[in-house]
Amino acid sequence: MTQVTARPRVVIVGAGFGGLWAARGLARSGADVILIDRNNYHTFLPLLYQVAASELSASDIAFPIRSLLRHMPNVHFLMAQVEAIKPEASIVQTTVGEIPYDFLVLAVGSIAHFFGIIGAGEHAYPLKTIADANALRNHILSCFESAAHESDAHKREQILTFVIVGGGPTGVEFAGALSELIHGPLYQDYYALDLREVRIVLLEAIDHLLNTLPTKLGDYAFKRLKKMGVQVHLGAAVSKISSDAVQLQDGTTIPSGTVIWTAGVQGAADSEWGLPTTKNGQIAVLPTLQVPNYPHIYVIGDLARLEQNGERLPMLAPVAMQAGTAAAQNITRELRNQSQLPFVYHDRGTLATIGRNAAVADIWGHAFTGFFAWLIWLTIHIYNLMSMRNRLIVLISWAWDYFFFERGVRLILANPPPQPHEFESSLHEIKE
Amino acid sequence: MTQVTARPRVVIVGAGFGGLWAARGLARSGADVILIDRNNYHTFLPLLYQVAASELSASDIAFPIRSLLRHMPNVHFLMAQVEAIKPEASIVQTTVGEIPYDFLVLAVGSIAHFFGIIGAGEHAYPLKTIADANALRNHILSCFESAAHESDAHKREQILTFVIVGGGPTGVEFAGALSELIHGPLYQDYYALDLREVRIVLLEAIDHLLNTLPTKLGDYAFKRLKKMGVQVHLGAAVSKISSDAVQLQDGTTIPSGTVIWTAGVQGAADSEWGLPTTKNGQIAVLPTLQVPNYPHIYVIGDLARLEQNGERLPMLAPVAMQAGTAAAQNITRELRNQSQLPFVYHDRGTLATIGRNAAVADIWGHAFTGFFAWLIWLTIHIYNLMSMRNRLIVLISWAWDYFFFERGVRLILANPPPQPHEFESSLHEIKE
Repeated sequence: MTQVTARPRVVIVGAGFGGLWAARGLARSGADVILIDRNNYHTFLPLLYQVAASELSASDIAFPIRSLLRHMPNVHFLMAQVEAIKPEASIVQTTVGEIPYDFLVLAVGSIAHFFGIIGAGEHAYPLKTIADANALRNHILSCFESAAHESDAHKREQILTFVIVGGGPTGVEFAGALSELIHGPLYQDYYALDLREVRIVLLEAIDHLLNTLPTKLGDYAFKRLKKMGVQVHLGAAVSKISSDAVQLQDGTTIPSGTVIWTAGVQGAADSEWGLPTTKNGQIAVLPTLQVPNYPHIYVIGDLARLEQNGERLPMLAPVAMQAGTAAAQNITRELRNQSQLPFVYHDRGTLATIGRNAAVADIWGHAFTGFFAWLIWLTIHIYNLMSMRNRLIVLISWAWDYFFFERGVRLILANPPPQPHEFESSLHEIKE
Repeated sequence: MTQVTARPRVVIVGAGFGGLWAARGLARSGADVILIDRNNYHTFLPLLYQVAASELSASDIAFPIRSLLRHMPNVHFLMAQVEAIKPEASIVQTTVGEIPYDFLVLAVGSIAHFFGIIGAGEHAYPLKTIADANALRNHILSCFESAAHESDAHKREQILTFVIVGGGPTGVEFAGALSELIHGPLYQDYYALDLREVRIVLLEAIDHLLNTLPTKLGDYAFKRLKKMGVQVHLGAAVSKISSDAVQLQDGTTIPSGTVIWTAGVQGAADSEWGLPTTKNGQIAVLPTLQVPNYPHIYVIGDLARLEQNGERLPMLAPVAMQAGTAAAQNITRELRNQSQLPFVYHDRGTLATIGRNAAVADIWGHAFTGFFAWLIWLTIHIYNLMSMRNRLIVLISWAWDYFFFERGVRLILANPPPQPHEFESSLHEIKE
């Protein structure tokens, strides 16, 4: 790519909620937009834990990016990884060549943050990508296959103990989903196994579940999970994770071959980018979402560090979507010689589901629990899925589970690593 | 596992059509049955090519074996690989321990056979397992992503040339499915690519497609595929396959980065088993499906070599199913001190689909083509899927494709290799 076209070019890196909403916001801006992602699909992260829990298939929550862009003729997709950013030359260096930009929007999201806990990076299962979710599903089902022919009771206990670290929404949702997977379909599959040997342990370092929500909701989640057989330990800080146990700071050791990490995330900023990065991998931005001293670079979503009313904006999908729209608006305004506007996040509420007929919702200024919250959760998630086909398939999967206690994706699917044919690429022109 | 229970034990190796039908046939036999497979799922192979063509998700054609066995309390599942067979001791040695048997049914199916063609094993994509299909789908979609930013026309041509070797049912079905994938959804996805640069080439060494079916059907497939833009070359024998080209025996070279191998299969017999094996990996059996000199070992499906009316039985799903039932019957008869019966295969016909409204059918003594054959194909395949949920989801996927020219699984999904936790297994007792 050697020449920049007459129309201004916006390069967006990352096709998560932030990047995608930015692209949508720029669809009629008059700019040429290039959306870059290392995958050819957008991942609907709020339902990722259901892939790990054998409830949904990866293809139900992954959407081909190109089909999401069909009605935006000025937005082009490029599958590539970003290697470096050269703000002085206004160039993004990718695995398939250099892309010049007039405006750059960085929206690469977040990765798991292990807080330096020994062994966490090696032995804990993160839950941030489709590959993570598939690996975790394969592993959980393999544990049951191993336990089915394991005669040593101690080993069986270790194999069948699943420890979830982190009592935020993801940890709570996954604990509930895992409990329902085991007490529903797996109970029928492994009828000769004594499922009383199965332990699901949820560890939370502070004294409350769902601590960003009203206390009432965390209390409800605590009671509900206990009722579902989940052992919830509050004030339980992890000190070490190995291949066969979790150690707590109070000295307790929990023998377990499966530790799921939902306790922390950090921004996915790369030190190679040459932009100032915070200790937790974010990039601090001005209220307009621009990087200080780099007015043509915007940062949004989990990657952006911004305070509002004295508090850091949380790393949540709605923040990313709204920031994506705001960044697109500010770029459009600059193209029209209008002044930039500060981004204001509108918190429309938070939802988390625990299981069958049980969820918590903090919306419209009220805290709901139970069946009503669960209905809202269900409706909003089905509505937000990005294609009618996926809505139908997810609904069928949920209905099957709800009425028949049956999940279709109890598969240990060993896919090969990708084999992208190594064509020597000479990127002179993005054909699309 | 040290003791054999009082009830006779039948060990079945392989949960494909043959092994599964054998298990069903033994469900009320009074025997204890252990069904062994290296995967925890049964693969519905007739639709595997649709996974490679982004039409279906792997989970739509894979069924958890344990749920298929739920209503057979005497049938137990063991996920393991068979390492050796010791007929003298009546023991199967697996990756998780030794399993003694009274009767053994071998049903491990077939693998790709490359006839010693140079480079085929390294560079051609086989289409025999779910991992194969996922790898091929990833690769085809990656080719389009590469082509989208490739400026060299010659390289683009090579990237966009897909060569299918073998004009049997799988080759014909996949050629049609690939053509519809490209001319439907990919045409819309890559609107800036000139899809006239795409070539789908189908190579058949003899002078006819679908040579096991009536000539009329092969002719129809030939015409239909040509109409769909597939370049069909008859009498085209491959001599060499490399990473960037296919060479034919007549000296022609076709530049291509994607060669799909559907030209041959061979039995999957392992030389370590210590059983007499034919040159093409099968095990020759008596008409009763027993191995000569090993009356307690039965072989069925693609693995079995048996002649009927002077012709070898073909390696097809219906043969495997019928043989599975027959082997189960013979074992049951022996348990009742009745004499064994010879297996008689009833050919109920063959079907292959080419595309939208177009299929061939050789059934009820007649050769059908076109819409009627396509309807029969569709009905039979939906009917044969193993769960109502999968039937619904496959129907939705097909309807979406049929009405909207849209396929949901255009995903380059890089799954990690399986990470079965290495529990040191001590197999004393199969708990289930």
